[in-house]
Amino acid sequence: MHAINQYQDFFLSYLENQFVTKEPRNLYEPITYILGLGGKRMRPVLTLMAAEVFNADYKKALPAAMAVEVFHNFSLVHDDIMDDAPLRRGNQTVHEKWDVNSGILSGDAMLILAYQYFEQYEPVIFMQLAKLFSKTALEVCEGQQWDVDFETRNDVTIPEYLKMIEYKTAVLVAAAMKMGAVIAETSDENADLIYEFGLNLGLAFQLQDDYLDAFGDPKTFGKQVGGDIIENKKTYLYLKAIAFSNEEQASQLTQVFSKRLDDNADKINWVKEIFNDSGASKATQQAIEDYTFKAFGTLEKMNIGEDKKAMLRAFGENLMSRKV
Amino acid sequence: MHAINQYQDFFLSYLENQFVTKEPRNLYEPITYILGLGGKRMRPVLTLMAAEVFNADYKKALPAAMAVEVFHNFSLVHDDIMDDAPLRRGNQTVHEKWDVNSGILSGDAMLILAYQYFEQYEPVIFMQLAKLFSKTALEVCEGQQWDVDFETRNDVTIPEYLKMIEYKTAVLVAAAMKMGAVIAETSDENADLIYEFGLNLGLAFQLQDDYLDAFGDPKTFGKQVGGDIIENKKTYLYLKAIAFSNEEQASQLTQVFSKRLDDNADKINWVKEIFNDSGASKATQQAIEDYTFKAFGTLEKMNIGEDKKAMLRAFGENLMSRKV
Repeated sequence: MHAINQYQDFFLSYLENQFVTKEPRNLYEPITYILGLGGKRMRPVLTLMAAEVFNADYKKALPAAMAVEVFHNFSLVHDDIMDDAPLRRGNQTVHEKWDVNSGILSGDAMLILAYQYFEQYEPVIFMQLAKLFSKTALEVCEGQQWDVDFETRNDVTIPEYLKMIEYKTAVLVAAAMKMGAVIAETSDENADLIYEFGLNLGLAFQLQDDYLDAFGDPKTFGKQVGGDIIENKKTYLYLKAIAFSNEEQASQLTQVFSKRLDDNADKINWVKEIFNDSGASKATQQAIEDYTFKAFGTLEKMNIGEDKKAMLRAFGENLMSRKV
Repeated sequence: MHAINQYQDFFLSYLENQFVTKEPRNLYEPITYILGLGGKRMRPVLTLMAAEVFNADYKKALPAAMAVEVFHNFSLVHDDIMDDAPLRRGNQTVHEKWDVNSGILSGDAMLILAYQYFEQYEPVIFMQLAKLFSKTALEVCEGQQWDVDFETRNDVTIPEYLKMIEYKTAVLVAAAMKMGAVIAETSDENADLIYEFGLNLGLAFQLQDDYLDAFGDPKTFGKQVGGDIIENKKTYLYLKAIAFSNEEQASQLTQVFSKRLDDNADKINWVKEIFNDSGASKATQQAIEDYTFKAFGTLEKMNIGEDKKAMLRAFGENLMSRKV
């Protein structure tokens, strides 16, 4: 096994050798651009790590790791069009730097390219990976559709919200890990358990994202703190605050979340106070911990060495205590 | 073997049983809608026909035929967004009836659904189909990008134009037929020959489309006659007319093709006259014939019965003489 930053390095050297400028340039340049913008590369790292947890060489998992990263970036490009987002990782989004048509078309090409990375495996493994990938990719689309639908709904429940983030975010983390297990040809039981582990970790990760968006340190948090509040996003924090409030407080919060303001400083502070006073902050932190421990629970059932369990646990703890 | 309209009926009964209304509705309803708008279903029919040409039951080819049709409709949905088209087969386009975001996202889902149809085959066939499909789908994206790029270029050559329509249209016709061959597990040689047959037929088909757009009978042609002229599309007819003109005529034509007018009747008549007088119309009809006969040439080399060759030839002749 290697350390996380080593897996990152392995993946980055592989990634750098993937892209030569190909014609038509307007199709392929946006792909090279978005894949070069950085990010933690958490998903491909998990694929490499999972392969080694089940005793395969990480090198064997590099094409699948790449498929996962290319797919993740496809979803960013298309989501950024739908959200009309100007920036991604501090740089112009693809549809801003080129145009909407380039964003649509190079996104489409990335989805296809992701499948092509699986062609480096033999037919039985290829089919297992492609099936898992298709199922996951369709769930990500469904999650994105729920997210879009929720914007115009005022009756979103917490179970609905959890289902949305499970589909939009957690299933890809889970599938990334399961791909490592498939490539290592471990038992179906181990493969299902690492999927469960990834799914719960992915849920904890997304709830942590919601939490940091409001309560992160502006110095270390990469994005604008309070962005979700400005955008009136019905996150876990918000839904819990509504659930814990009396009728009057809930109606106040709903009203504040129906407006877009020029100066948001007061709004952000007021909403954060409600999140704290209502107990929503505490409930969110509790949920993050619960999902993380649920993930750790599946580790116990896994048929792997204690050193490997310790490593996966360390990864989870690291994720739970992250500030960025 | 069956008649073409029988294959259409087989495919339509299969198609009708594919779609139940699934949640989230805003993701799946546009898919049911676009697949229900009709069309000639030429590509899936070719998959079924090719399977029987190589002695497999057409029923075995239904999922692959469906994948081809779902992919084709995915490309229509995304292309219609890029072209800002209000109508498709006389009905509202998906992004008009819903919105651009629904068009993007349900298109993405269709691309994934297409891959899922191959899961009904065993691993070796699955991999052959998925590889052929990915290669083809990426070429279709490249063809669409060339088409977009050509809109703002004044120096498009005829070989470039032919490459563009090969990628945007012909490779999918070719792949649709090769899939039938793969499913029938015929020889690699036969599979490559039917691909060649489909590719040349696809080129003839697209050139015929260009021709009918200008010279089709308004009574039988489904679309607005002269649409390409109104849109200043640099079709084969236009590029040939430029090539056959002297400098003054070419500059006149270029100028007319730089404007958008309120009343297009005069423009259409004037341009059609140039197409005829310059010899561009004749050259286009000649090219359609050449590609069709090139397709027939590959039939000669194919290791199949004469009755099957006759059937494929009849299909090609039918396509070449079509009025719609």
